[in-house]
Amino acid sequence: CWPHGELRRFSDQDKEYVGFATLPNQVHRKSVKKGFDFTLMVAGESGLGKSTLVNSLFLTDLYKDRRLLNAEERITQTVEITKHTVDIEEKGVKLKLTIVDTPGFGDAVNNTECWKPVADYIDQQFEQYFRDESGLNRKNIQDNRVHCCLYFISPFGHGLRPLDVEFMKALHEKVNIVPVLAKADTLTPMEVRRKKIKIREEIEQYGIKIYQFPDCDSDEDEDFKQQDQELKDSIPFAVIGSNTVVEAKGKRVRGRLYPWGIVEVENQSHCDFIKLRNMLVRTHMQDLKDVTRETHYENYRAHCIQSMTRMVVKERNRKYAPRRPRPIGQHQTGQGRTGRT
Amino acid sequence: CWPHGELRRFSDQDKEYVGFATLPNQVHRKSVKKGFDFTLMVAGESGLGKSTLVNSLFLTDLYKDRRLLNAEERITQTVEITKHTVDIEEKGVKLKLTIVDTPGFGDAVNNTECWKPVADYIDQQFEQYFRDESGLNRKNIQDNRVHCCLYFISPFGHGLRPLDVEFMKALHEKVNIVPVLAKADTLTPMEVRRKKIKIREEIEQYGIKIYQFPDCDSDEDEDFKQQDQELKDSIPFAVIGSNTVVEAKGKRVRGRLYPWGIVEVENQSHCDFIKLRNMLVRTHMQDLKDVTRETHYENYRAHCIQSMTRMVVKERNRKYAPRRPRPIGQHQTGQGRTGRT
Repeated sequence: CWPHGELRRFSDQDKEYVGFATLPNQVHRKSVKKGFDFTLMVAGESGLGKSTLVNSLFLTDLYKDRRLLNAEERITQTVEITKHTVDIEEKGVKLKLTIVDTPGFGDAVNNTECWKPVADYIDQQFEQYFRDESGLNRKNIQDNRVHCCLYFISPFGHGLRPLDVEFMKALHEKVNIVPVLAKADTLTPMEVRRKKIKIREEIEQYGIKIYQFPDCDSDEDEDFKQQDQELKDSIPFAVIGSNTVVEAKGKRVRGRLYPWGIVEVENQSHCDFIKLRNMLVRTHMQDLKDVTRETHYENYRAHCIQSMTRMVVKERNRKYAPRRPRPIGQHQTGQGRTGRT
Repeated sequence: CWPHGELRRFSDQDKEYVGFATLPNQVHRKSVKKGFDFTLMVAGESGLGKSTLVNSLFLTDLYKDRRLLNAEERITQTVEITKHTVDIEEKGVKLKLTIVDTPGFGDAVNNTECWKPVADYIDQQFEQYFRDESGLNRKNIQDNRVHCCLYFISPFGHGLRPLDVEFMKALHEKVNIVPVLAKADTLTPMEVRRKKIKIREEIEQYGIKIYQFPDCDSDEDEDFKQQDQELKDSIPFAVIGSNTVVEAKGKRVRGRLYPWGIVEVENQSHCDFIKLRNMLVRTHMQDLKDVTRETHYENYRAHCIQSMTRMVVKERNRKYAPRRPRPIGQHQTGQGRTGRT
């Protein structure tokens, strides 16, 4: 409905003012009315604190009915994909949050192609959206596209392990990958710094394209640019998760109580939890959605259309070829081209 | 880029606050960065003040190079469609405004089907968008869909004239029609009230579907609901346009200087100009765009797809029919169905 607040604010006295400066507010209001959705995937081997971190990030219990598998069960388990959805509300803003989990990933003895079910899942969501978007009734499309994948890197690896490289390279053109250094309370600040540099170098070296923060506008102030650079230098975010509240210096905080001290999740000198949450939720959530829609999905869609076109051409050639005699050389070229696609 | 303002506002102390309440702000900021566009069509016979009103609405001169036709030229003129685009900025918000004009509409002696070029124009924009949206590169689609059509009703008609009815009925499922009662300074307040009621009754009676303001939410306050009802009761907006500034009671205002007094365009007791501008620009511009996209365009697209499907089926029947003998009765049914589509 229309906002009379706007009308009061811009009185009739404001003669040289048309009023379209209210457009962003109209968009703002409509977005609140409609509500938001966000789909976050977490990936990485078992025990790195994926579920705990997600619960800490969104201050909600997404894994109420999770049953942990024992060693025997985990041997036979293959990578499966599970989805948890919660509706949360904050200051009148509604968010339908979906967490896509990949239990079993990297847990097998032989993890060859264990990224495949994950990649397939992402593609299936794109495929479903492509179908829905091409269909007749587009009013209530359910959008299950994955907007971000938090990839958990073990703090015990010397940088990236081959499985990490393989996973990220297989997924990086399908989803926004944000790498996190898990369970960072096992590392000293110096170790964290060194490991981060090593991992960033390896990401570069292996040509892995993780999620890129959008560039600063040239007209931003210095303070802003510095914060942006700090964010870029935090990759991979060193995180510690905790769902328990402990008492530290008289304050009740989320943390982990060790005999040698208390690790505070939300203390910026202890880890990057706050940086990650600010980025993921407060500053870049919409950008993650936009990049998913405008880049990853559009790539998928273009590939789809191109291979559909190729199939039609091939089918047509197959149909008409026998009637038209063709030189053998040309026929071979055609096959060669098919083989490469 | 990411807004550090958000980070400052929600300090780390705010322990039970995740931060996704900033999502509407992220959307707001992105919309400002991208800029807005709006396409407004004006229709109605010559001389009703269409150009003047548009210039008054947007405080800009959209018709700098317009040349008026003389009577002789207007006899041979058919309805043509012209487009004027201006980029305007207000408080940092950029708007690409396109005005689609329909000079020649209703000016002929015989105006049979003179709505046709207008309807065709709207369809062509939908068609172009449908093509672009179905194509491979969707990054920089130029969206020329018409978001609103101000339809100018002559103050001299006794309610709607047949041409008005025909135009609106031909267009009402393609575009958001907002009827305006033109040159309302020729009518006394009583005449305006009566004419509005008459026109609203006729719109109802002829089944014309003009743009519907979205319903108020039940949780809005009474003040708000009253303003909404007032807006609905203003249809058709009685308007007076003027590009000249005159002095009235010591203030400089947009108006028309008559020997018997000054008509002030922006005086709410003189006409509905302010109501129309508030609705069109400050409160409902985004809704007009949304209804265009979600209703009018989707209808067009559905029709397109359905008739494409029918053509494919027909083509297939034509191809395969001679091979399969069919009873004559069934064949006739098939033809009958084709005839009706």
